[in-house]
Amino acid sequence: MQQLERLREKVQNAMQQLSWQKQPKELYSPISYTLQSDGKRIRPLLTLLACNMFSEKIDDAIAPALGMEVFHNFTLLHDDIMDKAPVRRGMPTVHEKWNANTAILSGDAMMIEAYKLVSKTPHTILPKVLDVFSETALGVCEGQMFDMQFEKRMDVSEEEYLEMIRLKTSVLLAAALKIGALIGGASEKDANELYSFGISVGLAFQLIDDWLDSFGEEAVFGKRIGGDILENKKTYLLIKALELANPEQKKELFRWIEAVDFAAEEKIASVKEIFQTLGVDKQTQIKAENFSQDAFSHLAKLNIPNEKKQGLEILVRDLLKRDK
Amino acid sequence: MQQLERLREKVQNAMQQLSWQKQPKELYSPISYTLQSDGKRIRPLLTLLACNMFSEKIDDAIAPALGMEVFHNFTLLHDDIMDKAPVRRGMPTVHEKWNANTAILSGDAMMIEAYKLVSKTPHTILPKVLDVFSETALGVCEGQMFDMQFEKRMDVSEEEYLEMIRLKTSVLLAAALKIGALIGGASEKDANELYSFGISVGLAFQLIDDWLDSFGEEAVFGKRIGGDILENKKTYLLIKALELANPEQKKELFRWIEAVDFAAEEKIASVKEIFQTLGVDKQTQIKAENFSQDAFSHLAKLNIPNEKKQGLEILVRDLLKRDK
Repeated sequence: MQQLERLREKVQNAMQQLSWQKQPKELYSPISYTLQSDGKRIRPLLTLLACNMFSEKIDDAIAPALGMEVFHNFTLLHDDIMDKAPVRRGMPTVHEKWNANTAILSGDAMMIEAYKLVSKTPHTILPKVLDVFSETALGVCEGQMFDMQFEKRMDVSEEEYLEMIRLKTSVLLAAALKIGALIGGASEKDANELYSFGISVGLAFQLIDDWLDSFGEEAVFGKRIGGDILENKKTYLLIKALELANPEQKKELFRWIEAVDFAAEEKIASVKEIFQTLGVDKQTQIKAENFSQDAFSHLAKLNIPNEKKQGLEILVRDLLKRDK
Repeated sequence: MQQLERLREKVQNAMQQLSWQKQPKELYSPISYTLQSDGKRIRPLLTLLACNMFSEKIDDAIAPALGMEVFHNFTLLHDDIMDKAPVRRGMPTVHEKWNANTAILSGDAMMIEAYKLVSKTPHTILPKVLDVFSETALGVCEGQMFDMQFEKRMDVSEEEYLEMIRLKTSVLLAAALKIGALIGGASEKDANELYSFGISVGLAFQLIDDWLDSFGEEAVFGKRIGGDILENKKTYLLIKALELANPEQKKELFRWIEAVDFAAEEKIASVKEIFQTLGVDKQTQIKAENFSQDAFSHLAKLNIPNEKKQGLEILVRDLLKRDK
């Protein structure tokens, strides 16, 4: 679609114009390295799309839109240190390519750069936008802390899990939309509808991601299927399975979770079978579908002509479809 | 002095009113822990003093003043991870008491909290204040990166060292003053004079600190004398000594720097003797005195009655005196 392509190009051009040729090189090179990868730039696109819903003039939204992307990539950089992840998008992570100290410090600088970009919001709504951004940024940190804590727990409830992914994934998508809307001159009500839309999109997206990791097709998903199962990751599938399993099924799940010496394919197949027996694969799809419908109900309430909503609708339908 | 006491109390009360009783506890407790220590609160005091020079109304400056303190303590928290420091102000560091991941993430949250406080600046000057704050925050990161790089180098020049401490120490003191002045309604010129004052105060402070670590009195300095020498820290003294030493003195310095098995007192005494022979102890004092005089020349240029400058003058003279 034309609008989407135009905005995507605007984002890419603006990203390329950010300059990281500053001293000391070891502080700024990791930022440039992190941002050069061909991420999907979903968050800045959401900001520009939301702004464009309410205004033909979107230039004021470009710097804050990039701020969303820089902040998102900062969280990936620091999360990768905490998770000891060796690879991100097919490339060595910053703490692997440089070292942990450089990754900590470049991440810090990256968060400041994100604030600098967000601060380029037009002055009249700067206090409001900063408020949304800072609350969101704190929420993302809270989500990461819950995520790390859940790794050590076997009794995470569905409610706790949904709250964690709301913080870790949804709030930044929602804020990217709300900030774009505010810059475009949306009413508080419309900006909040878009925020709610973003929250539900994020929840649906994460549940679909959980489902795909076990039941998707490798060629479409782009990652090896079963990774979450091998890592005993507390996904929606595992949390629901632990909740619904009878004592025998629970025992088998724990046997696989605690297993040290096993064939990967056997573990994946066995755990998937338990998921299917319990129906948590279907339940995950239904839950994702519910969040998706909830999202679009908020979009429907926006007080603007339907054709203004098309770009966002196409982007998000594509995001939530994948190979389902 | 009455004004200083009054402002110090304002800072302490306001610090205590910040609430860290938020969830998840493991994210916010380390922030509360870091801020509860009885630091000297120099930076928020500088902000309030600078504001009070130009206005009787200082309440608008309180939140941004606390932002300076929270940001400063955030940098200590992350620096301590990078330096693997076990103790800070007599207490276990956050990464020791909790763990490195918690320290990284709580530090991130702390930087966001600092931005939240700075964002409470009156709206009319918020863009200007944010600009000063973000540039300063980046400068502090740059300073820390240079500091880490210098650890691995033996050819750091005096100029490089002064630039590093300007970034690592001075710019935040200078920004605390400038932001306070701007909130108090100072002219751009006066705000910049205070900024220059802060830069020179920071440089003088660090050189005095370098001198005290080798030549101070333990009871007054509050730390064990000779710590920098034992750690081969690239202080102004060592950098100047390496610059001025003849081949024989250089050889002896390197012998001590590379020594693995030695008596601490002997190393300290021997290196101090080289410093004294080369006169770098005196040179450090003179350099510090020059920066101090430069600082007060900027204070003299401020376009306000002298009695308005007294509080700041007393605070800074005290800061730069210590046991010299």
